[in-house]
Amino acid sequence: MHQTFDAALGIDLLHVNQTGADHNRAHFDRWGITCLNIMSSPGAGKTALLERTLAGLSGELAIAVIEGDMTTELDADRLRQYDVPVIAINTGRSCHLDAKMVAGGLHTLEHTCDPQALDLVLVENVGNLVCPAEFEVGEHAKVALLSLTEGEDKPLKYPIMFQEADCLLITKIDLAPYLEVSIDQIAANVRQMNPDVAIFAVSAKTGAGLEDWFGWVRDRVQRSIPAKSHAHLS
Amino acid sequence: MHQTFDAALGIDLLHVNQTGADHNRAHFDRWGITCLNIMSSPGAGKTALLERTLAGLSGELAIAVIEGDMTTELDADRLRQYDVPVIAINTGRSCHLDAKMVAGGLHTLEHTCDPQALDLVLVENVGNLVCPAEFEVGEHAKVALLSLTEGEDKPLKYPIMFQEADCLLITKIDLAPYLEVSIDQIAANVRQMNPDVAIFAVSAKTGAGLEDWFGWVRDRVQRSIPAKSHAHLS
Repeated sequence: MHQTFDAALGIDLLHVNQTGADHNRAHFDRWGITCLNIMSSPGAGKTALLERTLAGLSGELAIAVIEGDMTTELDADRLRQYDVPVIAINTGRSCHLDAKMVAGGLHTLEHTCDPQALDLVLVENVGNLVCPAEFEVGEHAKVALLSLTEGEDKPLKYPIMFQEADCLLITKIDLAPYLEVSIDQIAANVRQMNPDVAIFAVSAKTGAGLEDWFGWVRDRVQRSIPAKSHAHLS
Repeated sequence: MHQTFDAALGIDLLHVNQTGADHNRAHFDRWGITCLNIMSSPGAGKTALLERTLAGLSGELAIAVIEGDMTTELDADRLRQYDVPVIAINTGRSCHLDAKMVAGGLHTLEHTCDPQALDLVLVENVGNLVCPAEFEVGEHAKVALLSLTEGEDKPLKYPIMFQEADCLLITKIDLAPYLEVSIDQIAANVRQMNPDVAIFAVSAKTGAGLEDWFGWVRDRVQRSIPAKSHAHLS
């Protein structure tokens, strides 16, 4: 949040965004879709995780991706190779996705495929460990990534993201032998901010820990199945 | 920049900030101080670079640090071990330092030491590869860090920071053997955004490349010496 803005105004803008996010979530619920908002610093491995997740789960779940980047479709193009609908949103100068941008993405999605046939929408946010945590886009859960190379202290120094996360992935653990960083200490610092968050240590390079992450995703999707059945009947 | 805000309002706020930044810079100029604004993603190694810089240069230059973090004084405490004035600013929910916060820091600095005796103020910004680039704090030059672990594509995906930077440090090059990333490709992508930026590849761990960085800092400080002499005469 930009502290220079008037506090009352900031609250209003977050309120407007929240209304838009609730609207998006109502669409997801009606379609029986689970939506996950994937967030991290630049370069923590969001796109690599999505590549692995599409390769691992797109055979059993119908997945689409909404890909947020300030500029370029570099990440979207990487994900299009997995034969799933990928909607690219360029945010321009904006440091995060907001509900309105994602609503535009959903509109495009409806013209790209039948959303009723989807189980899961993965939203890849702009790389930023601060601002995206404050702007819901209609997700059912927030997933934060923290690369092992970012250091042990980040959960303490950037608390909002870690307080908001439902799931925290410690990424790039294949680099552990070359870093003076403890995965256990990172996890302890995350738990200090958020005792209930699910934590998985993973490597998109070696595949370590990914089955646990897939299990967590399957569990979240399972929770939407009653809504899905309902949507199919309506 | 948060795109949800009204464009006209956004411009006004940046204008207000710019006025404050110019005011801060006038103070720096009067005191004969060079101010560098150090920015990067979280965990790219800003504090480690400052530790090395204080160890390497505080014998020949009188340095103070303004340390911005959302919460905690973890980084400030690391730098206080180098026996230089360190002013900590907690930004709360704000994702960047702004001119007003740094003005407050300068006020504290004036009560901590004689600013006329200083040569260099290093401002460590909040870890964020987007927003800090748009809010000047009164610096004479912007220094951006990009960790080798963040990947080759970041200068293309987060263009504003790289367009604004006067100096770009590619950090953590000691990890090059364990990553599929080319330093030359990163430098080429940076030059595509900003042909004139000074680029140094460094490792705070091994010390590689730091002498070139120190040389660049000395050169920037040298440019302020006439102002310094003037300040001493006034």
